[in-house]
Amino acid sequence: MAMVCLSDFEAYAKKYLPKIAWDYFAAGADDCTTRDENILAYKRIHFRPRMLRDVSVMDIRTKILGTEISFPVGIAPTGFHQLAWPDGEKSTARAARAMNTCYIASTYSTCTLEEICAAAPGGLRWFQLYIHRNRAASQQLVQRAEALGFQGLVLTTDVPYTGKRRDDVRNGFRLPPHMKLKNLEQAFEVCKMSPAFHSLLDPSVTWNDIHWLQSLTHLPIIIKGILTREDAELAVRHGVQGIIVSNHGGRQLDEGPATIDALAEVVEAVRGRAEVYVDGGIRKGSDVLKALALGAKCVFIGRPALWGLAYKGEEGLQDVLRILQDEFRLSMALAG
Amino acid sequence: MAMVCLSDFEAYAKKYLPKIAWDYFAAGADDCTTRDENILAYKRIHFRPRMLRDVSVMDIRTKILGTEISFPVGIAPTGFHQLAWPDGEKSTARAARAMNTCYIASTYSTCTLEEICAAAPGGLRWFQLYIHRNRAASQQLVQRAEALGFQGLVLTTDVPYTGKRRDDVRNGFRLPPHMKLKNLEQAFEVCKMSPAFHSLLDPSVTWNDIHWLQSLTHLPIIIKGILTREDAELAVRHGVQGIIVSNHGGRQLDEGPATIDALAEVVEAVRGRAEVYVDGGIRKGSDVLKALALGAKCVFIGRPALWGLAYKGEEGLQDVLRILQDEFRLSMALAG
Amino acid sequence: MAMVCLSDFEAYAKKYLPKIAWDYFAAGADDCTTRDENILAYKRIHFRPRMLRDVSVMDIRTKILGTEISFPVGIAPTGFHQLAWPDGEKSTARAARAMNTCYIASTYSTCTLEEICAAAPGGLRWFQLYIHRNRAASQQLVQRAEALGFQGLVLTTDVPYTGKRRDDVRNGFRLPPHMKLKNLEQAFEVCKMSPAFHSLLDPSVTWNDIHWLQSLTHLPIIIKGILTREDAELAVRHGVQGIIVSNHGGRQLDEGPATIDALAEVVEAVRGRAEVYVDGGIRKGSDVLKALALGAKCVFIGRPALWGLAYKGEEGLQDVLRILQDEFRLSMALAG
Amino acid sequence: MAMVCLSDFEAYAKKYLPKIAWDYFAAGADDCTTRDENILAYKRIHFRPRMLRDVSVMDIRTKILGTEISFPVGIAPTGFHQLAWPDGEKSTARAARAMNTCYIASTYSTCTLEEICAAAPGGLRWFQLYIHRNRAASQQLVQRAEALGFQGLVLTTDVPYTGKRRDDVRNGFRLPPHMKLKNLEQAFEVCKMSPAFHSLLDPSVTWNDIHWLQSLTHLPIIIKGILTREDAELAVRHGVQGIIVSNHGGRQLDEGPATIDALAEVVEAVRGRAEVYVDGGIRKGSDVLKALALGAKCVFIGRPALWGLAYKGEEGLQDVLRILQDEFRLSMALAG
Repeated sequence: MAMVCLSDFEAYAKKYLPKIAWDYFAAGADDCTTRDENILAYKRIHFRPRMLRDVSVMDIRTKILGTEISFPVGIAPTGFHQLAWPDGEKSTARAARAMNTCYIASTYSTCTLEEICAAAPGGLRWFQLYIHRNRAASQQLVQRAEALGFQGLVLTTDVPYTGKRRDDVRNGFRLPPHMKLKNLEQAFEVCKMSPAFHSLLDPSVTWNDIHWLQSLTHLPIIIKGILTREDAELAVRHGVQGIIVSNHGGRQLDEGPATIDALAEVVEAVRGRAEVYVDGGIRKGSDVLKALALGAKCVFIGRPALWGLAYKGEEGLQDVLRILQDEFRLSMALAG
Repeated sequence: MAMVCLSDFEAYAKKYLPKIAWDYFAAGADDCTTRDENILAYKRIHFRPRMLRDVSVMDIRTKILGTEISFPVGIAPTGFHQLAWPDGEKSTARAARAMNTCYIASTYSTCTLEEICAAAPGGLRWFQLYIHRNRAASQQLVQRAEALGFQGLVLTTDVPYTGKRRDDVRNGFRLPPHMKLKNLEQAFEVCKMSPAFHSLLDPSVTWNDIHWLQSLTHLPIIIKGILTREDAELAVRHGVQGIIVSNHGGRQLDEGPATIDALAEVVEAVRGRAEVYVDGGIRKGSDVLKALALGAKCVFIGRPALWGLAYKGEEGLQDVLRILQDEFRLSMALAG
Repeated sequence: MAMVCLSDFEAYAKKYLPKIAWDYFAAGADDCTTRDENILAYKRIHFRPRMLRDVSVMDIRTKILGTEISFPVGIAPTGFHQLAWPDGEKSTARAARAMNTCYIASTYSTCTLEEICAAAPGGLRWFQLYIHRNRAASQQLVQRAEALGFQGLVLTTDVPYTGKRRDDVRNGFRLPPHMKLKNLEQAFEVCKMSPAFHSLLDPSVTWNDIHWLQSLTHLPIIIKGILTREDAELAVRHGVQGIIVSNHGGRQLDEGPATIDALAEVVEAVRGRAEVYVDGGIRKGSDVLKALALGAKCVFIGRPALWGLAYKGEEGLQDVLRILQDEFRLSMALAG
Repeated sequence: MAMVCLSDFEAYAKKYLPKIAWDYFAAGADDCTTRDENILAYKRIHFRPRMLRDVSVMDIRTKILGTEISFPVGIAPTGFHQLAWPDGEKSTARAARAMNTCYIASTYSTCTLEEICAAAPGGLRWFQLYIHRNRAASQQLVQRAEALGFQGLVLTTDVPYTGKRRDDVRNGFRLPPHMKLKNLEQAFEVCKMSPAFHSLLDPSVTWNDIHWLQSLTHLPIIIKGILTREDAELAVRHGVQGIIVSNHGGRQLDEGPATIDALAEVVEAVRGRAEVYVDGGIRKGSDVLKALALGAKCVFIGRPALWGLAYKGEEGLQDVLRILQDEFRLSMALAG
């Protein structure tokens, strides 16, 4: 079977992953409307292609927070990569480094931050943080990440509680016994995925906690989950360096906006005072081009990265990234 | 089979109810366009979710006409609960009391008002009234309800004649011999469901009859079936305390507006002079939040309550209410 | 099988008519887009229902060109009724008279005008005319109709050539040997349906021919096939008494407007100077109410009349009309 | 099987062509959205039909760049006609001449330009050019075409690189061994279709190369692939005689505009300073009429011509053209 486009990897993952893992990765909240809208919204955006421009040489590199990456597509934070591939996040880190792009490692990784860094020394990585009720534990995670050379701290804001993903409830989803939330072992008793693990999250987090984070670390702070101009303005005022327009892949609040639709209002509100990124619904290189045309500095992929891992681990994720890179370059050329 | 969301109860009811009962509850007028639009219209309304607000403590209680309920979801008036569960409206009353919310008992109950009250003493209940050609009979019903401690009188306005529900005609729908319209026994000869029972209704009722009702009772009057600003203004001028924006679940005039679409214009016209509620199409906690965001004080559920009864009587209806409550609380938190 | 709504008659006709006859009646031009749009456009129009009006007495009679009919639904001109029922147009005439409404007999009837009149003496009938290249033949038809007591002359304007109905071409549609275009026998050699019969029509007819018609007859002239304000204005200026907004059931030019969408602009242009009617897409009583609310004086049904004939001849067509009448009365009551 | 409309030829071709050839002709880029939009966009455009105009005589001839053709439909440039019919482009040329219309021969023909001309001497033909990295080769092709009597030079501008057509990648599409890109044999080593053949194209072509082409030939230059007013203005300023609004049948950049939607803005920008044509999505005579109503001087058909060839070679293509001609004439008459 030729792997020609990202849907091929999706079909492969759906066929070969255990149902419980596939369902977990595929899940959207409630009716999955927002999950699906993330994709449909891209289709409603049309190019105005221009002709007869010299497209013989194209430079698709970009910089995010000052660091160059080979093309404007990074790896969004997603949990439990061992569900997709035995080496888990270590493979993800290796693929991201090989493709010279940025990997945002999740708090809910099944490898430790130390293992991730050891697997791909020198790769550009950011660390994604949930703030726990136990603030000391969160502080420890932040400082561990900084010490390990992570170059950005991504604060997820849209999970005061976990969204209702019906299939996960039906499946009674939990991690298999041999997988652990390794980064939380040091901080918590809870070290394997259970229905309770999300109750560790602190639903009382507010904008003031940005200042608390800034007091803990010198890392630039990127805030993830912003969907409105009002929150974008607040983010800038609180001194964040980056904003990821995201609805958590449609896994949290259903029937909010598609991310690509929310992007323009965020970009307009930010007026260049921070870098703006977007995730959710990227399935083709032309989607990347659309996001950039609407003001994103870079996009991040979530589920497609997991499909790549499920296909062939590090190599499969590189395939996914390479296809996106080729498609992005081609659509740039064809759009002039 | 895990009951995770309201659709699960719908599927159960469709599978286990006798076809004639399922068809009766599911029926919409004509092409069922409005019945289905009630649901689709909710999907067209999108949230603008806000982040980083302290959602650790949320108070979802509300008051309707001065009485506190545990969350803004009550039970809309629907007929013939014994078709769904042997104990009929007695189970409904118990579940509503257990969940501390309001139950609007229908004129077309298969238990007497007295039985309903005895089943769940102290519960908050309103009585839904059709005005019959025989006004004395209607007067007697109103005064019986008031004497029994019902706290509101809901006047249904959209049934001068019964809507055309094709499946009911095909099925030759009528109540099984052992069920009766018990509340009408004292007033009428007609005590079992027959094609003729609706011809008892008076199609000449007008706004002046509100004054007649007011002369009969001290109960607050809630008017059900309003869909336009013009009628909302008339309702307020005639001194009603509440308005239920309703299209009778799409069972009367087909191809009118979805209730959630009509809500905004009614709220605007009422300008706080009466409480505004809405029914029709509520299937998720986020629907409740949308209705409240658009100005409803409370919503009422019709068919989902019947599905809950069909599943496990009192217990099943409590399950339905509890799921809605959890979903409502979660969507409030996630929407900020 | 209970016949509850017009779709039931459609299903019956589709099942029991010979395929070639069903295809002929069902056919639309090209992709059948306009045929289907006629129906879909009604669904896009929503009522604003009003409550608490006295709807105990409703008068649904109306007058068209001064003659009272029992309700505002007449029989549109369609050809070849013997394909649907052995008695053909004689049954149609009887049913229309029994229901006290207007029947527009087609030039392409399979009974003579004389037979039609004899079958139902005293019924209100108009005669539909195509202008043939042989003007003397057309003149003879007009004068025959007038002499027989037809009370209106309906000039069809949208058939300079026949639309392309793919299934008819595939089926090699022609009338069975025992059926004839009896009204043309006296005028032409061509007396049975053949691919050539339409070439008798004169594609050079213009507005000036209205004056020619007026010189031939004292009958009021109703012009059928108007879809734009410009042509409505021309029709009024040429002194017609009525306009039927029609696209020939979507059988002529595909991808023009649905008739109910064109109605408003025609009504506005006419400003009461002629009566405006509409045909195409009427499937429920509420469709009739919508057409009247948008300014039509009366509607005409085409295919549903044929389905009624196919079901049980005169009796079946009466069933169809009675259902429409009941539905129309009910939707008036429910819409207030 | 009666061939009644163009879809019949499509069904035939899909059934009888080898899958690899069908896939190649049918392919669109990426998700095929633009390919399908080309057709859907026509359906969204509605006629406003006018009645009672004398349509007994209609002249459907037109002139393109001064030469009369029998009706405003020509043959768009498409490659590899031998995949559809053994005689390949020779049959195409004969059919176009027989129907007295214009055939744009592709650079990627499987017959030489000399063979094409010899097959149908005297036919109106334009030559479609890709500019190769090897400019001398392109120059030679242009001058050969001019010497052979081609009357226009069509420069394709939307293929700096080939679009991503997933099925072709999956199929490993290449020409069968016995077919050759015969026109390139003299200029290049590459003479059979291979994944590499498109890398001969020069992605650095700009508007300045129009001047270079003008220096090589006296032929009028028609520019193909324009979709925006900006590029239309540039085309006119660079002195082209014609513009073909085209998105390469949706085979290049996916999710750009449908051609019929782009036509109006191009026509408006050009303001008569060049002739404007359109291709893509033409499936019925009424589509031709819509394109002309929106300002096109003529349309060109791509895939339908190939289906005609696949059906019966020269004869099949004539059938396709004749059906379009009849439908075009009829829709003109019916639209008034």
